[in-house]
Amino acid sequence: MTETPDWIAVDWGTSNVRAWAMTAQGTVLDEAASDKGMGKLAPAEFEPALLDLIGGWGDGPRRVVACGMVGARQGWTEAPYARVPGHPLPTGLTMAPTTTPGLSFGIIPGLCQNDPADVMRGEETKVAGFLALNPGWDGTLLLPGTHPKWISVSAGEIVAFRTSLTGEVFAALSGHTVLRHSVATEQWDDEAFLGGVAEGLARPEALMNRLFAIRAESLLKGLQPSAAKARLSGLLIGADLAGARGWWLGARVALMGAGDLMDTWRAALQAQGVAPEEADATQATLAGLTEAWRRSQ
Amino acid sequence: MTETPDWIAVDWGTSNVRAWAMTAQGTVLDEAASDKGMGKLAPAEFEPALLDLIGGWGDGPRRVVACGMVGARQGWTEAPYARVPGHPLPTGLTMAPTTTPGLSFGIIPGLCQNDPADVMRGEETKVAGFLALNPGWDGTLLLPGTHPKWISVSAGEIVAFRTSLTGEVFAALSGHTVLRHSVATEQWDDEAFLGGVAEGLARPEALMNRLFAIRAESLLKGLQPSAAKARLSGLLIGADLAGARGWWLGARVALMGAGDLMDTWRAALQAQGVAPEEADATQATLAGLTEAWRRSQ
Repeated sequence: MTETPDWIAVDWGTSNVRAWAMTAQGTVLDEAASDKGMGKLAPAEFEPALLDLIGGWGDGPRRVVACGMVGARQGWTEAPYARVPGHPLPTGLTMAPTTTPGLSFGIIPGLCQNDPADVMRGEETKVAGFLALNPGWDGTLLLPGTHPKWISVSAGEIVAFRTSLTGEVFAALSGHTVLRHSVATEQWDDEAFLGGVAEGLARPEALMNRLFAIRAESLLKGLQPSAAKARLSGLLIGADLAGARGWWLGARVALMGAGDLMDTWRAALQAQGVAPEEADATQATLAGLTEAWRRSQ
Repeated sequence: MTETPDWIAVDWGTSNVRAWAMTAQGTVLDEAASDKGMGKLAPAEFEPALLDLIGGWGDGPRRVVACGMVGARQGWTEAPYARVPGHPLPTGLTMAPTTTPGLSFGIIPGLCQNDPADVMRGEETKVAGFLALNPGWDGTLLLPGTHPKWISVSAGEIVAFRTSLTGEVFAALSGHTVLRHSVATEQWDDEAFLGGVAEGLARPEALMNRLFAIRAESLLKGLQPSAAKARLSGLLIGADLAGARGWWLGARVALMGAGDLMDTWRAALQAQGVAPEEADATQATLAGLTEAWRRSQ
């Protein structure tokens, strides 16, 4: 990189951190990443970790705009939640304390919802970026992940949102219950997945029993690990779809994410007759960080 | 113990093993227990573990009748499942291979159900014992535990049964998801538990979201760990009750178990207007093992 960045975009999550050297026009000059996520750092360790990451990007003034768990209570400094309904970037940045001359580090606040109680940190930036890239878009944004988020967007604002524990429930049940004996495989059975989705959606009240039935079918009927794993995922995503019915039924839906989870959720939605639009999560994050940087000028 | 037992009763589960020195009349002369559960033993290690446990009970012929996971595929020897509907002890014992002169070890087979697929190992003995102690009892037996079992009993037979993963889901979510930060306490909030039961029962389809909401309420509203933990348990038990509605609504219900879990499930059932009868699990196990021993004479 020969050019000095005008500012630096940072997405600092629980497990990883990514940084981009940016021009004022929003062009990416360079990027860097490390596994020094928020979960591994004490407050005093954030600044050194950042400097390790962006050290090669010149030594002039460095203005950073960041989103994600870096602003959590356990992060670098707490960026108090703003409240929905409202714009995804309703307030200014929360500045973290820095000791390096010329370095400023502004954190985009997360959003909270009072009733039902809910929180997000990082997703508000993706929504802001998605809306910057798709002005006037109304509908439901679905962000798959450990904690899938359904986000209702209208007139450039977040109306309401709904987070579920679905992805983390899948990981906990796969790894830490008797089901681990039944689902130990990297393979995936599409048909078993869709069967699980249909069952979870039609009979969410049967979930506690249908989970055990995966084990019973392994023992009695030789249910294959690929089918057991995919059915477990399907049952949980089906249960999530059942609770979120009002968010997707007859609605315009856009999926925003990356990788296999996009395929999984797309298949689950398509089986219900929903043809989701799709958006790239990294693009949206960068666009949202850029939007926050512009607003801070 | 001065008297030599006529036979020995053994309840060999995944985590623990208990043994009782018995007279032909079903009187307990002595008892012993260890933590050498099935999960810790290779097939060849069962006989030495047994001899450690019952070594003090004379050296004449020793006839053992056992129930539980000792008869699983990973146990001492597999005792193939018998099928419901039918008597809880429909077949003879499966004999494990032994090398000690005079030692015989008979295992009570577990039961399976074809559709919906389900299995039990050990609970069939409790049901047999409960019916021996309560001849002619008809209704639903509920055995709380890691895998709660709803067992429909009529005319001395098991008509059908339904196992759920509820207890293990609670442990996995408490220990291995973001909820662990919210539920880390030994305290318990009865009101929060019953609120969770009501919510899980009324809206089982909302579960994936209500689980995350526990975390959100901890962050936003200072939800106390005792309330968070009890609500988590309540939501899961409520979801179980929702799926098992036909098993308890308007039915005669008996709870069979021990300890805190009995209080938990009793409270959940009472809140739905069900006044469950209660039975002691150890008593029922012993009565069931005695019944199996009599039948094997």
